Parts: sequence; structure tokens; C-alpha cells
Amino acid sequence: MSEKIVVNFTPTGMIPTKKMTPYVPLSVQEIVEDVRLATEIGITMVHLHAIDPETHEPSYKKEIYAEIIEGIRKYAPELVICTSLSGRNFSQLEQRSDPLNLTGHLKPDMGSLTLSSLNFNNVASINSPKMIQDLAAIMKKKGIVPELEAFDVGMINYAKYLERKNLIEPPYYFNLLLGNIACAQADILHAGIMIGDVPENSIWSLAGIGTNQLKMNSLAIAFGGGVRVGIEDNIWYDNERTRLATNSDLLKRVHRIAKANEREIMTSIEFRKKMNLQPGHGKYGRKG
Amino acid sequence: MSEKIVVNFTPTGMIPTKKMTPYVPLSVQEIVEDVRLATEIGITMVHLHAIDPETHEPSYKKEIYAEIIEGIRKYAPELVICTSLSGRNFSQLEQRSDPLNLTGHLKPDMGSLTLSSLNFNNVASINSPKMIQDLAAIMKKKGIVPELEAFDVGMINYAKYLERKNLIEPPYYFNLLLGNIACAQADILHAGIMIGDVPENSIWSLAGIGTNQLKMNSLAIAFGGGVRVGIEDNIWYDNERTRLATNSDLLKRVHRIAKANEREIMTSIEFRKKMNLQPGHGKYGRKG
Repeated sequence: MSEKIVVNFTPTGMIPTKKMTPYVPLSVQEIVEDVRLATEIGITMVHLHAIDPETHEPSYKKEIYAEIIEGIRKYAPELVICTSLSGRNFSQLEQRSDPLNLTGHLKPDMGSLTLSSLNFNNVASINSPKMIQDLAAIMKKKGIVPELEAFDVGMINYAKYLERKNLIEPPYYFNLLLGNIACAQADILHAGIMIGDVPENSIWSLAGIGTNQLKMNSLAIAFGGGVRVGIEDNIWYDNERTRLATNSDLLKRVHRIAKANEREIMTSIEFRKKMNLQPGHGKYGRKG
Repeated sequence: MSEKIVVNFTPTGMIPTKKMTPYVPLSVQEIVEDVRLATEIGITMVHLHAIDPETHEPSYKKEIYAEIIEGIRKYAPELVICTSLSGRNFSQLEQRSDPLNLTGHLKPDMGSLTLSSLNFNNVASINSPKMIQDLAAIMKKKGIVPELEAFDVGMINYAKYLERKNLIEPPYYFNLLLGNIACAQADILHAGIMIGDVPENSIWSLAGIGTNQLKMNSLAIAFGGGVRVGIEDNIWYDNERTRLATNSDLLKRVHRIAKANEREIMTSIEFRKKMNLQPGHGKYGRKG
């Protein structure tokens, strides 16, 4: 469906700490600044996690998301913004859906929707069928587009089930995240099966966990997909793990690979049109 | 690895009720009798769930498992017996590992080990990394062999991780269960990828949820694998769901397909040798 590359920038997340890498942005100001640099390099959308300024732990609170979104939209009113609705640390619907309560110029265009329960390295990530359906229903009602996240083959099938239940509507956007320990691995066959299973009317991006990020991004660029790229998934620049990456390092490399593959980066305006999103500049989320 | 067919008989489980099908065995006596009929038809092993006689709900209690195992071993002292350690309804290690406390002639040869958290139709099934590792460690210590259960592609990778951590030891036995809503689907590509990912030194069986059971069993018989078959996964005899199946119906059909494919059923004695299990007749579990 997409000829140009969706660059889904994921600057910070649940895992990286300043101890792991000084380059991870944690404060509102740091995140806003890293996204600004990213928009100068060229990105299509940003996947945001809020971090509590006192505990330095991930936060679900819409107030922190509001500060980040406000900061970003001052300089990039068209950038497509997706907030995390992750359940890794928060178990209640009211917590996970909190960022969806933002309105007006603070409203996110998209919210992440993990399509099953799964295991990460050290912890189970619980997304019960009811939680997934409730989050999808809230997003549909509010005109916020789900960022459909599949960590293994079968999770794509659950998106098809949500479609049959009228809880999600095309066009779809999928993140296919490969390389978690108990999920699809970052290899060609697993990626190929997942890409082949994505429904019609979808844009998909490949993500790789850790140093798999480069492999998965390269594969996606070569085969017509988008990329999810940034320190959330991978703190290293090289496979040997000798050099910590900045977000700009990772983005610039994606641009070099894209250029060498003779593919352009999709602009936020183009992505908004494809995904049936409002045009930005004060209007956010899906067209009514 | 295996030329003969492992028939892993799963007569009853967490889902089927007498309301759904009168043919599901629930009481100790019914289960013991259905397994007896199955041994006359020909099976290699049995995957057991205990049902509470009062509530008719699944139970983790070793006392109920003991009655079933005692009943079965009176007529089939060599049959390989695997007890469920499912976490679908029980969240504590002490509950889930309770059947592993059985000893002597009541000791199970194997215990089920689901390799990740996942979603079923209406409920999340939580198997945290710690829970999986704790169950594996207990089984290793007690000489009980894990029945490695993979519902999606990436779960097989977690078995490889457990191997690297020395929590499981070859030879391995895998159930590959396809057709759950948010897991690998019962199609050729998903099955092919999973079979290809199973480590060396493994015996694998295919299971299909619902009417997918026949497809997956046939695929396995044609391609050198084993089958998991029984009312736990599928209450219907036909794809059109007009005729409820007995366990004997399902087993006899597997035998007909096996015969037509010119493959024999592996005996329990042969399976015990391949899996390095004690010979039965009072000695159960893995050789020391």
C-alpha cells in the first residue's frame, strides 16, 4: 500500500534508563528536544512514552503526555503523535486509557494497542481480551487510531477478529515487533509470515528489539514497509555493543539506507491522508 | 526424529462441560474409563486434567490426579502420563506444581509447561517468565519431563532459552497447538514455521483447536509428527458441527488416517525409550 517509508520514531520507553545510556530522553524537555531534532532529520510519526519526573518510572498520566504533546506541536503541528497505552506497568483501564482523555490541540492522533498478552524477558505483559476490546472501543469512539502492535504471528489474527467485531476500522497501521525472547524472532521467515498476514488496507512497520533493530529496519526498507526506530527498542549503534546510539544516530542511518534503496520518507501530511487523519494544526485524530 | 506416531490423548480439559457435550469425561471414573478405551484403540500418552467432583471446575489438586493415575495404571502401567500444570485458573506456583508432588506409582511422567503468557478467547493465560522457570526447575529436580507447549511461533524460542539456562534437557517433547484466536493459526505456513523451529532432539505433536484438530492431525501424520487428539481441544466430529464426537471416535479416525499413511502408532514403551523415561510398572519419570 505504501511506497514511501513510514518512520515511526520511538525515542524513549519502559526499559532504557540514564544508567543504561545517557542518550535516552526522559524529561519532558529532553523528549520534546529529541523529537525536534528528529523532525529536522525527517520522521513520519512519533510513539511517545511519558516518564514520571520524580520516580523516573514510566507513567500513564495524561498531564505528562499533555506537556510533551504541547511542546512538540509548537514546532511540528502536523507530526502524527501516538501515545503508549502499555499495560506493562499499569493494569487498570482507567490508567491505560488516560492519555485518550486529552482533547483539542493536545489530543493524540493514535494510541498503541498490543494485540495479546505476552512475555517480555522478565515480566508478563497482560492485555486481556476485554482490555484490548475496551481500549479499541474507546479509541474508536474518540476518533483516535490504534497503533496495532503484534509481537508474534497470531496477534495479527486478533486484529482481524477486532475488525469482525467492528472495534477497529481500516486503514490500519501495524507495528510488527520482532526479537523478544518468547515472541517472533527477528529472522526472515518470521518477518515474512507476519508481513504476509497483515490485512489489506494496512501500513506496516518493522521493529527489532536490541541490535535486531537495524536488520528489521533494513528488511522493511527493502521490502516496502515502514520502520519503527529509536532508543526505546535499542540503545546500541553497533552489533558489537561498543557504541551507544543517540536517537539522531539511529534516524540518520535509516535515512542513509532509505536513500540507498531509493525510497523516500513519508511525510506526516502524506501519512495523515493515507490513514484518514485530520490535517494537524489544531485538528487531531481520525476524520469523523 | 520419530517415525512412529505419538498419539497424545487429551480426553478432557478446562473448557468442555457436560452441557456442551455429554461425551466429555469429568469424574475420575469417567476419565479412567475413557483412557482405558483409548489404550485399547492405541495411544502413546495421555494429557490429564483433574476436575473437581463438586464444582465441576478444573482442579490443580494432586489428590484428584492421584485417583485418576491410580485408576489408569491398574490396567496400563506403561502408559506415559502427563498432568496439566495450567495457569489458566490458578495463579500460584504451589497450586500449579501440586501434581508434581505425587511420588511412587502415582508420580506423573510428565507435566505440561506453557512457554509464555498468551490470550485465549475470553481470558488471558498468565505464565510469567519466573513461573515457567520455577516449574521447569521443579520438574528437572523431580525427574519429571516437561510437555513443552507452544501456541505461537516465538514460544519455541523460549524453550531454547530454557535449554541455555539448563532448566530443560533433551530429548524434548513439544505440543504445537494451533488455532487459538490470538495465537498461531491452523494453517500450513504457521505450522511449517513452528515445526521448522523445533530444536533437534525433539518429538513434536500438532494440536488444532476446535474443528482444526483434524487438519492439524492429518498434517502431522503426513509430515512425520505426532498428534494431540481428544475432546479437550475439540468436541465435534465434523467440520459442519452437526455431530458431537466421543473420544473413541476421534482416536479411531486418527488410526484410520495413520494406517492410510502407512505409519504406525508409537507404543508407550517405545516413547519411554526415546524420551529416556523409566519403564513404567512402578517406575515413572525420567531416568536419573
